[in-house]
Amino acid sequence: MARAKKIPSTTVSRLSVYVRALQKLRNEAVVTTSSEKLAEQVGLTAAQIRKDLAYFGQFGVPGRGYYVENLHNELAMILGINRRWEVALAGVGHLGYALLAYNGFKKQGFDVVVAFDKDPAKIGQTWEGVKIYDIAEARHVLPECGAEIGIIAVPAASAQEACDALVAGGLKSILSFAPGRIIVPPDVTVKRVELAMELEWLSYYATNIGERG
Amino acid sequence: MARAKKIPSTTVSRLSVYVRALQKLRNEAVVTTSSEKLAEQVGLTAAQIRKDLAYFGQFGVPGRGYYVENLHNELAMILGINRRWEVALAGVGHLGYALLAYNGFKKQGFDVVVAFDKDPAKIGQTWEGVKIYDIAEARHVLPECGAEIGIIAVPAASAQEACDALVAGGLKSILSFAPGRIIVPPDVTVKRVELAMELEWLSYYATNIGERG
Repeated sequence: MARAKKIPSTTVSRLSVYVRALQKLRNEAVVTTSSEKLAEQVGLTAAQIRKDLAYFGQFGVPGRGYYVENLHNELAMILGINRRWEVALAGVGHLGYALLAYNGFKKQGFDVVVAFDKDPAKIGQTWEGVKIYDIAEARHVLPECGAEIGIIAVPAASAQEACDALVAGGLKSILSFAPGRIIVPPDVTVKRVELAMELEWLSYYATNIGERG
Repeated sequence: MARAKKIPSTTVSRLSVYVRALQKLRNEAVVTTSSEKLAEQVGLTAAQIRKDLAYFGQFGVPGRGYYVENLHNELAMILGINRRWEVALAGVGHLGYALLAYNGFKKQGFDVVVAFDKDPAKIGQTWEGVKIYDIAEARHVLPECGAEIGIIAVPAASAQEACDALVAGGLKSILSFAPGRIIVPPDVTVKRVELAMELEWLSYYATNIGERG
């Protein structure tokens, strides 16, 4: 898709929020909605939602608002989640195993199809239906298996090495749970998960009691 | 703090992003910044940053912008992260254990001080310095131990039961990794972590190659 304007990364994150809100409305058999109603549902302003959507086209119908099913499908297509993604996992320690078994990924179309570790006791095993290979073999194994997205779930000290191995195998999109910076070539996108930020959100409401509800 | 306006939940999430950007600037010994420079750093508009900050007061100095150290400390105070929080963890399966061992929490001032499970093989043990109690005992154990925030890392089928136990122990702020809805009294705040949303962000950039960089 050729677009005149660069889309802010935060707009992309909000599309996921809108898709979830629309999924919920669809499940409730709601046919149309508006930026005002969506705004209330997701805790943003209507202006923000209109601005985010305007990057991608004209979705509203004058006098009717948005068709829920239609807007959902358009946003899913824009996000690239109207298809299945095969995912490679680096690190099957406690976090990695939890991610292997996490059904929230599969539900949204993300299938872990291959895993890597450097522990000889784990290499060669199959966990949750997923075979574990030596991370040193990633450059040979990945091109064979169709995975396009990588997840790093190794300790911080091994994160760069794990990332290098996934990149050597051809992956360009990587989600990292390891604290600290990872260096990648310019054509590789890394997204870091910062779980502490979720606790900070709670800390705010615990500190400012009475703000919610 | 009494405030005239209700603060949007998304503004609170963005404060965490600003605090991290300011921490980075402070580490680089930067003294002042502006909403424009911060906007570039975090991928938002300057107007959004000014609007978010305006909920909490007047932080900029005309002609100088923001003092990095000062704005960092003010936001940390607003978020309630200028102190240590004691955290209770429900569920020490793979994910729970990974969270126990996750040093990103402690670094930001969140200390897991007590854990709960319903597996008799785990109850009574001490992992990573944290004692594991029977979840059925949470109502008696929690008031003794000072934890104010709870984390739920149990399977979806046990999440409501685990949450009820934490709430019975007096917790009012809960982070849940379990998929699905949890019902709580109106004075309890639950924040759900949706890891699949992070993968959707990557899916967008993998689908729209060339958008970044």
